[in-house]
Amino acid sequence: MRLDPAALQRPVPPGAPEPLAEPDRDALRLEVVMGALSDPLRMRIVRTLLLESEAFDHTCGWFGLDRPKSSLTHHFRALREAGLIRQRQYGLERRSHVRVADLEARFPGLLGLVADWQE
Amino acid sequence: MRLDPAALQRPVPPGAPEPLAEPDRDALRLEVVMGALSDPLRMRIVRTLLLESEAFDHTCGWFGLDRPKSSLTHHFRALREAGLIRQRQYGLERRSHVRVADLEARFPGLLGLVADWQE
Repeated sequence: MRLDPAALQRPVPPGAPEPLAEPDRDALRLEVVMGALSDPLRMRIVRTLLLESEAFDHTCGWFGLDRPKSSLTHHFRALREAGLIRQRQYGLERRSHVRVADLEARFPGLLGLVADWQE
Repeated sequence: MRLDPAALQRPVPPGAPEPLAEPDRDALRLEVVMGALSDPLRMRIVRTLLLESEAFDHTCGWFGLDRPKSSLTHHFRALREAGLIRQRQYGLERRSHVRVADLEARFPGLLGLVADWQE
């Protein structure tokens, strides 16, 4: 699937908190990104965020995943630390979106493979 | 980097042994392939085989990697079981090449990302 980064990345809403710590675009590593996607649940999270988002960012709960919250927190953090998603803290909850522009710039076509992935 | 699968995959030489057990093209899984590439040494092996081959297939020794043979055997097997390389047993030694046509058919562009990878 060919993706249009501009269509997939919504503008940052006014008043959004600063992103949590994450690697800069230039520090993204292909083997680290692929390692984060080697877990089917994490692959599914990224694919769902990429293709089914209806807002700027989403909480863990939005995915409807039947896993303990601590497990989801771990997986979302792994995706953020690998550079796949950006997370912001809104009070007690974190919301996430895919770093489409950064990933397309560094690893063109990778998110298209994720979009084509089937469980 | 855009790769030309036809240019990268040499024909099977007459008399080559049958390949060792491997997943069929249709059974390849993106998350498994990415998991195998999440180790920098394995990424390097695939990239080297892809871009620097001067024969149909290559032994572990050809790579000049400074690792114990048992460790290399493990990494090559992981790559084969994930579907990235095809291995054949020639007497006491195994030789490997990248499954370019299968990978391009299933995950177009993935090997181009590997080719562009920098250590």
